Amino acid sequence: MMGSINNLLKSPTTLLILSLIVWTTSPLVVEARVHHHKWEVKYQFKSPDCFQKLAVTINGMTPGPTIYARQGDTVVVEVKNSLFTENVAIHWHGIRQIGTPWSDGTEGVTQCPIVPGDTFTYKFVVDRAGTYIYHGHYGMQRSAGLNGMIIVSVPDGVTEPFSYDYDRSILLNDWWHKSTYEQAAGLNSVPFVWIGEPQSLLINGRGNFNCSLAGAGVCNATTPDCSPYVLTMVPGKTYRLRIASIASLSAFNFELEGHSMTIVEADGNYVEPFVVKNLNIYSGETYSVIVKADQDSSRNYWAALNVITRKPGTPTGLGIINYYLNSPKKSPPTDPPSGPIWNDTTYFLRQSQAIKARQGYVTPPPPTSDRVITLLNTQNKIDGRIKWAMNNMSFTLPDTPYLVSLKQRLHHVFNQKPAPETYDSKNFDVFGVAKNTNATSGNSIYRLKFNSTVDIILQNVNTMTVNNSETHPWHLHGHDFWVLGYGIGKFDPMNDPKKYNLVDPIMKNTVPLHRYGWTALRFRADNPGVWAFHCHIEAHFFMGMGVVFEEGVAKVGRLPSSIMGCGETKRFLRH
Amino acid sequence: MMGSINNLLKSPTTLLILSLIVWTTSPLVVEARVHHHKWEVKYQFKSPDCFQKLAVTINGMTPGPTIYARQGDTVVVEVKNSLFTENVAIHWHGIRQIGTPWSDGTEGVTQCPIVPGDTFTYKFVVDRAGTYIYHGHYGMQRSAGLNGMIIVSVPDGVTEPFSYDYDRSILLNDWWHKSTYEQAAGLNSVPFVWIGEPQSLLINGRGNFNCSLAGAGVCNATTPDCSPYVLTMVPGKTYRLRIASIASLSAFNFELEGHSMTIVEADGNYVEPFVVKNLNIYSGETYSVIVKADQDSSRNYWAALNVITRKPGTPTGLGIINYYLNSPKKSPPTDPPSGPIWNDTTYFLRQSQAIKARQGYVTPPPPTSDRVITLLNTQNKIDGRIKWAMNNMSFTLPDTPYLVSLKQRLHHVFNQKPAPETYDSKNFDVFGVAKNTNATSGNSIYRLKFNSTVDIILQNVNTMTVNNSETHPWHLHGHDFWVLGYGIGKFDPMNDPKKYNLVDPIMKNTVPLHRYGWTALRFRADNPGVWAFHCHIEAHFFMGMGVVFEEGVAKVGRLPSSIMGCGETKRFLRH
Repeated sequence: MMGSINNLLKSPTTLLILSLIVWTTSPLVVEARVHHHKWEVKYQFKSPDCFQKLAVTINGMTPGPTIYARQGDTVVVEVKNSLFTENVAIHWHGIRQIGTPWSDGTEGVTQCPIVPGDTFTYKFVVDRAGTYIYHGHYGMQRSAGLNGMIIVSVPDGVTEPFSYDYDRSILLNDWWHKSTYEQAAGLNSVPFVWIGEPQSLLINGRGNFNCSLAGAGVCNATTPDCSPYVLTMVPGKTYRLRIASIASLSAFNFELEGHSMTIVEADGNYVEPFVVKNLNIYSGETYSVIVKADQDSSRNYWAALNVITRKPGTPTGLGIINYYLNSPKKSPPTDPPSGPIWNDTTYFLRQSQAIKARQGYVTPPPPTSDRVITLLNTQNKIDGRIKWAMNNMSFTLPDTPYLVSLKQRLHHVFNQKPAPETYDSKNFDVFGVAKNTNATSGNSIYRLKFNSTVDIILQNVNTMTVNNSETHPWHLHGHDFWVLGYGIGKFDPMNDPKKYNLVDPIMKNTVPLHRYGWTALRFRADNPGVWAFHCHIEAHFFMGMGVVFEEGVAKVGRLPSSIMGCGETKRFLRH
Repeated sequence: MMGSINNLLKSPTTLLILSLIVWTTSPLVVEARVHHHKWEVKYQFKSPDCFQKLAVTINGMTPGPTIYARQGDTVVVEVKNSLFTENVAIHWHGIRQIGTPWSDGTEGVTQCPIVPGDTFTYKFVVDRAGTYIYHGHYGMQRSAGLNGMIIVSVPDGVTEPFSYDYDRSILLNDWWHKSTYEQAAGLNSVPFVWIGEPQSLLINGRGNFNCSLAGAGVCNATTPDCSPYVLTMVPGKTYRLRIASIASLSAFNFELEGHSMTIVEADGNYVEPFVVKNLNIYSGETYSVIVKADQDSSRNYWAALNVITRKPGTPTGLGIINYYLNSPKKSPPTDPPSGPIWNDTTYFLRQSQAIKARQGYVTPPPPTSDRVITLLNTQNKIDGRIKWAMNNMSFTLPDTPYLVSLKQRLHHVFNQKPAPETYDSKNFDVFGVAKNTNATSGNSIYRLKFNSTVDIILQNVNTMTVNNSETHPWHLHGHDFWVLGYGIGKFDPMNDPKKYNLVDPIMKNTVPLHRYGWTALRFRADNPGVWAFHCHIEAHFFMGMGVVFEEGVAKVGRLPSSIMGCGETKRFLRH
């Protein structure tokens, strides 16, 4: 008898089943699997890069507290809005919200904004281990400081396909000294006013602005707020670094001086391991890399964060890899890595293409799709304002959240005409200044057949400036997608699909669209709800760079009243 | 026949009746008496004092457009919120909102805030000729630029008890270069961070900051936005100047160099005319003065705005009185008036006491009151934050507007215990640093018997700083009150009421509480609704310096759904 139990216990699958039984039968353990958080969102003066600025904080912190949970747990976050006059909404980036589309936190899509004084409760299951993020999804609050990480561990008894001694998280960001209000007002101005490149790059909320350049502001180079991030490593030990980018604008290259990294996870999915000297990471992406403390332990090393794909106007963000027993304050004796050449698209493309699903963990994509939506990404001028448009439509959010209007059949609150499916590919020169001067703003969406398979072809082009194209990290809510392929130039619908990786494509929720390139994605429309798909550069989404998908909204359960209060939802008030 | 009609027409009363008949029988004229305005509230970069700053604007303007109407007209303002993430509410200061308490625009008291994208329609009757203002009543948006004037003229055929050739409006303000967010965050910080004295004083939205002091900001001394306000006067003509103060913090003295002013109106009520060299005006007050262009017409003169009752840290605000045919750009040859000594309380008190109702236009107050509420105004520290308290209670707004919770009997949304009626007068030293260290925050209110007569005794004291007392302009929503008297020192309930002016007191909606002084008011609780009464210094109200009165709320008609959407109002959602 004992022997057979022992045999049973040796099988990981059985262990998982056993532990599930324990979870569902023991009240003590079941209770422990609901993680309750009370957050207060408020303004506070912060000096993350030594320069004092008003930031949106959670319980006084930016980045906010990290959420830890195990796969299958329920996370409950009560968000109290203590901003003075400003609303808020928080998105749980990478969490698919299966069965809880109203908890996606996307203002205008899944909920009305949370007004000051109100408390909104987000409740969702973290159904897969991995590295995720959360952030404001309203105006530009993400860049104002409202962001943080979600770490979901594997269930007890399940082992990951890689090993490490220590688990560390690194959140990357860019940072401006002007308020996001000023940035937003500039983006919306005629003529356009650009806030300029970020003043600092932040590693875990710490940067290093040169206070002698601060002008009239309050800058204190010795405040502990801006002491550099230190990653202490014990010689010989192996580290899992969970690296996420919440950048407002920048694409990053992250390098640990003298240390190679083995990429093992991307957006919560296991990656067939491969080694890189440095990691290109786009806003909204998360990675796990394995790093071994195998270098000369008598010194420290730089952790270096550099801007790529835009001409950098920001100094390298610096942290310290501190080999235990050196002082963490000991400066590395070398110059910090300066990263790859900013416009080496071939290099960036190559790393993107190298990311494949890990053997043994491949979920193969459906071999064909039911629908192909091509999205031409252009920069346009509409009514004198600079906008971004997909197939000539620049996206604007309606005043009533789509989830409510679709579920309650309020057909008048947004344009019922389907959003444009493609563009005039034949006559479009992707390398020349775009001539599509007839773009308009609109709030049309894509309604997808439930459980159908959808391909998205993202097509990049030249902006309104000669010889300029920008990288766009596209993020899909409510799903992972398979990354079928990348290319440079105009997508060829006849030949490029033949080169799709249908064998072991990585699944992700955020993917770069490289300069002048295309990216092909596939996903199953199997999650009842309404989901945003947008460029994760906050200013770009603000300027219209997004679309919305509806699928199976009739299957969505009764909507909570808490997501209402704005726009046409007031028609449900009976007093 | 013709003769008798002519005789009829000579009588102003008949004319008024005739014109009323015309108004109510001719659709054309009736339509003309509803003034429809469409306003878009949004952020825009503005340089009112040459220094560029993000301001809250109405249709691109700060101050916003002036509303003109005739007594008895209906004003409809559709307010579209185009701020990015910030709500809004607009209060019509001095308009009593008889029958429309939901249009008072006081966030938290009479409505939920208007969320971005939503449009809220204010509709109210301007039932009395006079000079009024409007402004944001949410957070510190008033100081961010959201303000303007309302001019209500007498009905056709009615003549005013003074004459003039031209009617001009002058809105006074103080202005900071930092955002009101920074100010609010500082007020709410531990330790307290004070934004400092205003950089500029504005006359009709124009100031004159010295750009050489601008530091890192954008400052352009030659932008037309900050060319000084010019009042052109034709020699020999008489001017009615409607002067209003929307100041965030400052009490003002306004002087027209070399010209005396005759005060004839205060807060929409006729004043027994008296002549002043300069006008002391407190935030929230409006006056009409008569000025004659009777000086040497070969030169121009200064219009000078100076800070009083606080030690000034802001240069004199300057405008030009331009005698026609001089160039408006011709600088006056003299030094601008520097105003009275800032702490000459006797002088300020004397002018306050001189303001009486005009003979022939006196509404006598009820000779006695049914209830006396004494409000001790103290500065306190609560949970480490500096606050203002009345009878030791610092006011906080509940998340659900009082008008809704009282009308719909949601008894749990605010403290049902009555707010404190008085303080321990015997043992309180009004000239020493306040020892009441046990103040608390609360949202209790005063429920008044409908149609009862209420006296309010405002009692000023020393602040938390030795030898310091601040002037507080108290503003009552929904009513005018009679100003029964002012004094310095502790109010004596036995003897001071004997000195009340019960013969010809002025009626006002805003009144100063002088340094170390007391002010006695009386009003009839005859306007069904819920009404704020608060210090009009925006930072002080933000720090708790206000109370709320309820009267006859059962008589209030069905509340519009548009005022709901926040807090407990969501319980009325049925979908």
